[in-house]
Amino acid sequence: MTERPPHGSARPGGRTARTRAAVLAAAYEELDRDAYAALTLDRLARRSGVHVSTIRRRWRTVEGVVVDLLAERSSTLPTPDTGDFRQDLAELAMAIGDFNNALRNRNVIQGLLVAAAHDPQVEEIVRGAFVGRIEQVTRIVRRAIERGQIPERTEPREVIAALAAPIYYRVLILRGFIDERLVRTAVEVTYQAALSGTFVREG
Amino acid sequence: MTERPPHGSARPGGRTARTRAAVLAAAYEELDRDAYAALTLDRLARRSGVHVSTIRRRWRTVEGVVVDLLAERSSTLPTPDTGDFRQDLAELAMAIGDFNNALRNRNVIQGLLVAAAHDPQVEEIVRGAFVGRIEQVTRIVRRAIERGQIPERTEPREVIAALAAPIYYRVLILRGFIDERLVRTAVEVTYQAALSGTFVREG
Repeated sequence: MTERPPHGSARPGGRTARTRAAVLAAAYEELDRDAYAALTLDRLARRSGVHVSTIRRRWRTVEGVVVDLLAERSSTLPTPDTGDFRQDLAELAMAIGDFNNALRNRNVIQGLLVAAAHDPQVEEIVRGAFVGRIEQVTRIVRRAIERGQIPERTEPREVIAALAAPIYYRVLILRGFIDERLVRTAVEVTYQAALSGTFVREG
Repeated sequence: MTERPPHGSARPGGRTARTRAAVLAAAYEELDRDAYAALTLDRLARRSGVHVSTIRRRWRTVEGVVVDLLAERSSTLPTPDTGDFRQDLAELAMAIGDFNNALRNRNVIQGLLVAAAHDPQVEEIVRGAFVGRIEQVTRIVRRAIERGQIPERTEPREVIAALAAPIYYRVLILRGFIDERLVRTAVEVTYQAALSGTFVREG
């Protein structure tokens, strides 16, 4: 006797998984063509071929879909490992910059912040996703410490936050795109500060 | 014969100005007590004593009120002038940090980003407000150049963005509060980078 998967589970390759893949792909395509504000459940239904009532039952709102998109996409950025700390920072900054220059990703991030502003539970999910991503790439900093390139008591998360902050500031506050100069400056500022011990833990 | 002010004008002390002041004050009070998501035109009407139809006619939506709040409040942060570049940076960073630790201001900023995501015209207003504010405090950097504390061709807006970025990253991405350590690190990183010429214009 084969066991039935629990209702609504995301069994890989099952119907639920296929529905999810179709709707998230449709959301990503829509956000690549138009602003976040233009995204509706009806448009998602049309593009994905999934009935709007199914989408509404599973995700409730457009915001729900965008939050799920985050869960699916947030693990796709690689962690550079060039053997050189400065080069690792440069490649990570370029990857974050490229990510944030793609219209669909800008729209996803905007959608996430809208959703977070409307719902404390979503805010926790968004926070967790970013913190998890930062934690992952702190390997860059840990390896630099092991190689003796930066002080031993450097706080890895602060280094990554310092590198990423100017990029997100450009996107969210200045509402502009990332250029080479911004990436280069962010890398240089972070690298020099890490070398000189600015991110060293106290006490 | 006295001239009548044009319809809807913001004549200081006039009825229109009083209505605006009452509604914006009510919005600021509501955002100090509850999340942005809880703000409605009805709650604004109740707290301000202005009829909801008047509010709807003038601002259309809650987002419209929050954007107007930005226009009213964005000029209230002072520009430090201590005679010392590092101290000016420290006072500005503390002011930005304190501003972003107040619940109502966090809620205003979240509301602005929601409004910007929903409407390109509002996005332009939000962008303009932040750029204008940055431009204002670049005086800190220009004075440091005049005093010979940092290189002559330093790009003032980049210095201010580098100082503010980690604070907004903490608020918007990590969804956390600003502590002393973050302020100190942001100041130190920015100060050292400015001194060593990282923000110098090329070509």
